[in-house]
Amino acid sequence: MTQDEQYEAAVQKKFHLEILARHLGWSLDSPERNYAERALSGYANLNLQGIAMNAIRSLGSDEQIAKWVQLCKNFQIIATYAQTELGHGTNLRGLETEATYDAATQEFVIHSPTMTATKWWPGDLGRSVTHAVVLAQLICSGVQHGMHAFIVPIRSLQDHTPLPGITVGDIGPKMGLEPVDNGFLRLNHVRVPRENMLSRFAEVLPDGTYRRLGTAQSNYLAMLMTRVWLLSTGILPYLQKSCVIAVRYSVIRHQSHLRPSDPEAKILDYQTQQQKLLPQLAMSYAFHFLATSLLEFFHSSFNAILNRDFSLLPELHALSSGMKAMVSDFCAQGTEICRRACGGHGYSKLSGLPTLVTQAIASCTYEGENTVLYLQLARFLMKIYLQVQLSPGSTPQKPLPWSVRYLATPGPARCTAQTAAHFLCPDLYTTAWAHVSFRLIKDAVHHTQTLMRSGVDQHDAWNQTAVIHLQAAKAHCYYITVRSFKEAVEKLDNEPAIQQVLRCLCDLYALHGILTNSGDFLHDGFLSGAQVDMARTAFLDLLPLIRKDAIFLTDAFDFTDHCLNSALGCYDGHVYERLFEWAKKSPANNKENPAYGKYIRPLLQSWRPKL
Amino acid sequence: MTQDEQYEAAVQKKFHLEILARHLGWSLDSPERNYAERALSGYANLNLQGIAMNAIRSLGSDEQIAKWVQLCKNFQIIATYAQTELGHGTNLRGLETEATYDAATQEFVIHSPTMTATKWWPGDLGRSVTHAVVLAQLICSGVQHGMHAFIVPIRSLQDHTPLPGITVGDIGPKMGLEPVDNGFLRLNHVRVPRENMLSRFAEVLPDGTYRRLGTAQSNYLAMLMTRVWLLSTGILPYLQKSCVIAVRYSVIRHQSHLRPSDPEAKILDYQTQQQKLLPQLAMSYAFHFLATSLLEFFHSSFNAILNRDFSLLPELHALSSGMKAMVSDFCAQGTEICRRACGGHGYSKLSGLPTLVTQAIASCTYEGENTVLYLQLARFLMKIYLQVQLSPGSTPQKPLPWSVRYLATPGPARCTAQTAAHFLCPDLYTTAWAHVSFRLIKDAVHHTQTLMRSGVDQHDAWNQTAVIHLQAAKAHCYYITVRSFKEAVEKLDNEPAIQQVLRCLCDLYALHGILTNSGDFLHDGFLSGAQVDMARTAFLDLLPLIRKDAIFLTDAFDFTDHCLNSALGCYDGHVYERLFEWAKKSPANNKENPAYGKYIRPLLQSWRPKL
Repeated sequence: MTQDEQYEAAVQKKFHLEILARHLGWSLDSPERNYAERALSGYANLNLQGIAMNAIRSLGSDEQIAKWVQLCKNFQIIATYAQTELGHGTNLRGLETEATYDAATQEFVIHSPTMTATKWWPGDLGRSVTHAVVLAQLICSGVQHGMHAFIVPIRSLQDHTPLPGITVGDIGPKMGLEPVDNGFLRLNHVRVPRENMLSRFAEVLPDGTYRRLGTAQSNYLAMLMTRVWLLSTGILPYLQKSCVIAVRYSVIRHQSHLRPSDPEAKILDYQTQQQKLLPQLAMSYAFHFLATSLLEFFHSSFNAILNRDFSLLPELHALSSGMKAMVSDFCAQGTEICRRACGGHGYSKLSGLPTLVTQAIASCTYEGENTVLYLQLARFLMKIYLQVQLSPGSTPQKPLPWSVRYLATPGPARCTAQTAAHFLCPDLYTTAWAHVSFRLIKDAVHHTQTLMRSGVDQHDAWNQTAVIHLQAAKAHCYYITVRSFKEAVEKLDNEPAIQQVLRCLCDLYALHGILTNSGDFLHDGFLSGAQVDMARTAFLDLLPLIRKDAIFLTDAFDFTDHCLNSALGCYDGHVYERLFEWAKKSPANNKENPAYGKYIRPLLQSWRPKL
Repeated sequence: MTQDEQYEAAVQKKFHLEILARHLGWSLDSPERNYAERALSGYANLNLQGIAMNAIRSLGSDEQIAKWVQLCKNFQIIATYAQTELGHGTNLRGLETEATYDAATQEFVIHSPTMTATKWWPGDLGRSVTHAVVLAQLICSGVQHGMHAFIVPIRSLQDHTPLPGITVGDIGPKMGLEPVDNGFLRLNHVRVPRENMLSRFAEVLPDGTYRRLGTAQSNYLAMLMTRVWLLSTGILPYLQKSCVIAVRYSVIRHQSHLRPSDPEAKILDYQTQQQKLLPQLAMSYAFHFLATSLLEFFHSSFNAILNRDFSLLPELHALSSGMKAMVSDFCAQGTEICRRACGGHGYSKLSGLPTLVTQAIASCTYEGENTVLYLQLARFLMKIYLQVQLSPGSTPQKPLPWSVRYLATPGPARCTAQTAAHFLCPDLYTTAWAHVSFRLIKDAVHHTQTLMRSGVDQHDAWNQTAVIHLQAAKAHCYYITVRSFKEAVEKLDNEPAIQQVLRCLCDLYALHGILTNSGDFLHDGFLSGAQVDMARTAFLDLLPLIRKDAIFLTDAFDFTDHCLNSALGCYDGHVYERLFEWAKKSPANNKENPAYGKYIRPLLQSWRPKL
């Protein structure tokens, strides 16, 4: 399909889904609707409607929520969230778009003062939306008040043409996301009424008086909500689908011989293939439990924040930033490992894997570039660490946030494992991860402080140790996922068979992380070289155990063949027949060769006289 | 452009290049021609002609070379190399295609006995070639003799239609390589004359007598030659171009503040950005020197092999396998790091980076899947290690191959560095890499032997330790690149300024590898935790030094704007203007919206009555 056809098909899917949902009375958060969304993931457009609604729900007043969320739900308007600009990304404060209040008309004048202020990347903006939630620098009576969100009509509800002052279009071809019309938007003194500024945490009175009702961080709430929501619905399914496809293909594909006298072996029976795929499978489960626990934390704190109790916001912001970075990094890496584990056929789009990889890769950049997000978590960790140091031994006045409580109680300085089997103990490896994360945070803070004590300015000191802080933030994230996986498995006491299988996956996830970061565990002697070898033995011994259940563990994700859209990953295993049938349908096989007459024949015949 | 248009444009480019080369008298290996090929890399088709010629040159008799290479050079025929099958890849012995000798007619009957025997993936096969070098199982008088190469006409030289018995077509869409018509081929009892079997290392006499003239490994010579050739011409340019684009963009892009009072900083001035890009730049240079030294080794041993002296073949095979795996792995990873370091704009195809990433990624699979290749090197290393153990202390009867000579002379058991500055010593870090590679090879072999002594069959023992052998092979490859980089820098004594800059890159390359694999260096106490910290300090201190020369170091690759084809990477730095201009040309901005009338308007209006 051409890009145009892909766009049309993706809008069509969303249209039919909406009509069907209304017809069948599926509410927005019903299981039926969630299942349908998951099945269509990546193939339907107009999904920024959800993100725009998140922004309105988190930044809008109750009246604004009542009005605009209803319009969005009914698709009476189609909205997107317009933050990133051509010259400005994750640094919210650097955005150039301006919203200047005009008290005379009680309107905001929204304007793009430069080319680099052009909004760039919002999904569905290029050809589809009627409205956008635009982030802009608020200016009242000549005073700048920082970023605020404004609802701006973009296209006519009558005939879809851009409204006066609006220049809007598509930003062109991308690495993936072909169906989506990611767009650009320039605003030339576009006027919107005073009521269109989302005003839960700040408002402008008719006379232009500015009143802040929240903290400077309140604006991040919309992004924060989107990140938490993305983990389970927007990112993880790509890794899960890739695992299904690669694991199924690996029991159909035969190559070489385990023993010379045997027939060719299934490639999933090779240790090297198991080592590629099974950690991805374990990760799929680890992130499922992580996303669930993060979502619970979010729900339990969101209402407090809406009611302007911001005490949980720093932890929620730090944790969701770090976890979005980690999950998207590992899902991007994992989908690519699955793709490459399918050899040449993984490079064919007919496998479905290239599409999954490019979708997962995109998530490393959108909704916050990952390095920037990790560093936001790192700043939080440094702050907590210093806070703990200030009140050593004693209970601090307010308890530490739960995710960092381990920083108050250092564990043993040496791991006690004496055999490989000892590493199959959740308490042992969770403690090991806590130790390493703690040590790296301490190390990073000490490096920064040493530089500052030697006279380096605090900002330079931060920049000169950023790489070390990054490493610490990553270890903290890994620790949190190990802990949440461990806790989820512990809750399955009434399902011992399932518990046992998931325990193996949890062990594998923790040990895989220890082995790929063994330097961090060996550095201060927490593990000895001999203990790393034990951990490796435990890891390698788990592989054939999990291999036995691998197909069931991927079936459990419950994706239909239609939704996988892969010649390699169908339930019936007819890989080669399908590859051949699908290839034959390629347009190249049903068209004249455009190059033959013009170039190939002249080339072949240019030496003819000398034959 | 549609796939059809991309295909046509890529054939057109090759056509014009050929006509131009003849007109200007450029020979095949002239600098002008090499420069043009490099500039067109990835945008011209009919490149399998080169690989087919490599196969003929390495497997054909002198008469066959004289005849067929000349026809290829003149483009009187267009050829490809057809090895991989739908169901069979890197395992050459598993291929199913048959070539049965018929003494009555002195012909070979080439046949695809099953669907999985369909040749799959050869470039230019789908719509372009007239001939293929087909790898097939030779059968004479009912006896199988293993894989041999046959020149098979595919399409008519008169009208380009497939010849009788040939079913040929395109395998459909891929992750990249859109212009290339990778194809499939089924052969239904196709007859070719006896002279069409490439017969340098084996021949079939008219009566059907089979004569082997080489070793069983001779057949690998064609792939070996292609791999060596690929490193510098086929893989490395993708990483170099990515570095140029990402480094140039990183001095134009400003984001956030190093100090609150400063204007937004160039992103290349952030330590985290330097840590992403500068190791890739160092790697580009490391691989350049590696490819050069490997090519020299190849040239010096190729003639001996053609003359059936196979003594250097095992080392050449092992080394080229491992190096192809390492260089393609790191180039794939490196192009992706460069792409992601450009944030959202790196995801836009207008940046040129997605195309470079998908080209680099493909090279991890074609011409040998990387895990399989690493394991071939690992088997060679195990053999050499055991050979050294058998004659400890004494000089073995024949000297060890140069690349593994270090396995005979273990270095010190502890690193002597006492300060960060000590790590800026080529001898010190080369010795460190030799130590780690040696230890990992020893460790892998011991694990395999321990299993065998405990009664595990040797094939199972290999499979159960394959992951450990893989790690050893990777360390060996890294050691070899550090050593070849060090030696190349040493030769620059008469260019002290250049030598100094390249020394920094060599230091960075070696230290980056030590830090990302620190566990391997800490494992047996070769490095202490404190020494790893020193190495990290040395590494971090190198970043701002190299950053000063980063633009010059990328300019030195000498790619034109036209050849980079990137809105982010042009020499003049007009990033945003170009992005905006190029985006406006997108077809989506110059076409009616196909979804509006059909879906968007009905959706928006479906609630209208209730408004």
